[in-house]
Amino acid sequence: MRIHVQNPAGEEIFPVTPAQWAAALARHPDLGGFAVSFADDDAGFAAAIPEAEVVLTWTKVVKQRFASGELPGVAPKLRVIACTSAGLDRLAPFDWLPPDILLLNNRGTHAAKAGEFALMSLLMLATHIPKITTAQRVERWAPIFGSVLSGRTVCIVGLGSIGGAAARHARHFGMRVLGVRNSPAPHPDCDEVHPTEALDQVLPRAEFLLLACPLTPATRGLIDARRIGLLPHGAKLVNMARGAVWDQDAVCDALDAGQLDGVVTDVAVPEPLPTGHRLWRTPGMLVVPHVSSDDPQTYNDGTLDILFANLRALRDGRPAPNRVDPARGY
Amino acid sequence: MRIHVQNPAGEEIFPVTPAQWAAALARHPDLGGFAVSFADDDAGFAAAIPEAEVVLTWTKVVKQRFASGELPGVAPKLRVIACTSAGLDRLAPFDWLPPDILLLNNRGTHAAKAGEFALMSLLMLATHIPKITTAQRVERWAPIFGSVLSGRTVCIVGLGSIGGAAARHARHFGMRVLGVRNSPAPHPDCDEVHPTEALDQVLPRAEFLLLACPLTPATRGLIDARRIGLLPHGAKLVNMARGAVWDQDAVCDALDAGQLDGVVTDVAVPEPLPTGHRLWRTPGMLVVPHVSSDDPQTYNDGTLDILFANLRALRDGRPAPNRVDPARGY
Repeated sequence: MRIHVQNPAGEEIFPVTPAQWAAALARHPDLGGFAVSFADDDAGFAAAIPEAEVVLTWTKVVKQRFASGELPGVAPKLRVIACTSAGLDRLAPFDWLPPDILLLNNRGTHAAKAGEFALMSLLMLATHIPKITTAQRVERWAPIFGSVLSGRTVCIVGLGSIGGAAARHARHFGMRVLGVRNSPAPHPDCDEVHPTEALDQVLPRAEFLLLACPLTPATRGLIDARRIGLLPHGAKLVNMARGAVWDQDAVCDALDAGQLDGVVTDVAVPEPLPTGHRLWRTPGMLVVPHVSSDDPQTYNDGTLDILFANLRALRDGRPAPNRVDPARGY
Repeated sequence: MRIHVQNPAGEEIFPVTPAQWAAALARHPDLGGFAVSFADDDAGFAAAIPEAEVVLTWTKVVKQRFASGELPGVAPKLRVIACTSAGLDRLAPFDWLPPDILLLNNRGTHAAKAGEFALMSLLMLATHIPKITTAQRVERWAPIFGSVLSGRTVCIVGLGSIGGAAARHARHFGMRVLGVRNSPAPHPDCDEVHPTEALDQVLPRAEFLLLACPLTPATRGLIDARRIGLLPHGAKLVNMARGAVWDQDAVCDALDAGQLDGVVTDVAVPEPLPTGHRLWRTPGMLVVPHVSSDDPQTYNDGTLDILFANLRALRDGRPAPNRVDPARGY
């Protein structure tokens, strides 16, 4: 099987290397027979893609290399596109994807780091750190006391590997965890799970609200001014999903009005957030530059383990666990 | 037994109230026979102190009311001074304290909140949050990736209730925990415990260093430029002890030089830290205004439980668990 890894040009931290590939092969001794190529430029892509059956690459590379109408022509043997991101929202709409090419995402790689980020954010909000860093900007010593997490309620929207890890940590610290997702099936780390349609009934109980859902047409603008108004006064908000899942101006307005006590966001519209943007300077808003979930020590090993698990499933005639349904968008 | 509670004038968040006293009595039904008075002013103090056998109050009140030579004269029946702080360094030297008056601190009340603060700080440093909030000040989107805590090493100086809670959380997240304290006795949540004299041998292994020791003549200036130089390059530092435990300028110098990657401090010299102080604006320094350990939801209940446990011990002829040894200072 011919596999091509196309790294982005100039990627310094996360390029998938031949050494990482060899180490992953050693972890999966039942898999083999791969002819693998690596490139980060046009020439390497052009040389490999006509014969490639599997491509492992970044969503931004997919978007750039496989514009609508390019496939299957440029890659007639391609069967699998594996992306190194969990959220593939930048590839929507999926009209560029022929129905016989399998699209895989990278859900699962992020759980350990993202779970720690989620817990850190809950602890920071309980401790009023966004207000404290706002005060540091103007060099003002202004004690504001916070309580422990135990006994408080968090609503987690999206219970994939990131939301699930957040739920597990929150429970360990004694929080009551209300999960919200498309299916109301129980989750082992949630006290309750509600369907997305019931979100409005859950929000009034959510002192903490953590967003960890994919960005899809159904979740775009999900947290708008009306829904922020349903939260308890002084609620605390974490966004680990995508900036477009909330109405960014409504969030800033709610911070300015005191309806929200504090916000930690790992995402923004646009990214990179330009100097002078309101998000940077709204008091109580802590802006993290989209680093919540990518651990440079483990990311590529996790990515390759997930790719290999999917290739094993395909070899064995089982469904690929990381298949993305273009109709759902995740 | 006559007990007097002297709250500080103007205290809005943490005054001990008659209702909290009544609730504590209900939790300790074996204790009773108390005549309790409450005051926050001179008149109330003057009225109660001649007959008081136990005073529960703040260190700043002790310092103000019991200057050297005042005791035992102003309070001839006084047997116990119970302080609402864990660290009584502001009462040193203890020449004002007659040898037959028992001095109690409040160690134990802070463990839950302080443990969460410690873990939050470790997670923030692993995620480079101090650098990220520094970048937010100048509205710069600068991704910097961090790894999970698992497998990394933290040295915790001081293994009282705060350092012990920090150790427990760090271990839960897979860290290797090196404890340092006066006695090298094992600690259930540390992989190793070393005596303070061995600190120089431990520091080169400490990617994370967390200070949770009392301020005493022995710990004043403990973390100076020389010892910072013993840490691995890019080490991360948390101060939950007192500002005088480190050389504040040496810490800022090490941040500026890149020897330290980031610092979270809950303490400063002086407090409140004045506008214009170097600590506010050193890149990579996150200044928290001394709120790491005081949970307004639980603080006074914990304080009264600790006082009652000590009164019970005295009634039963056992050593008071929160006795402060003036010779040690904690």
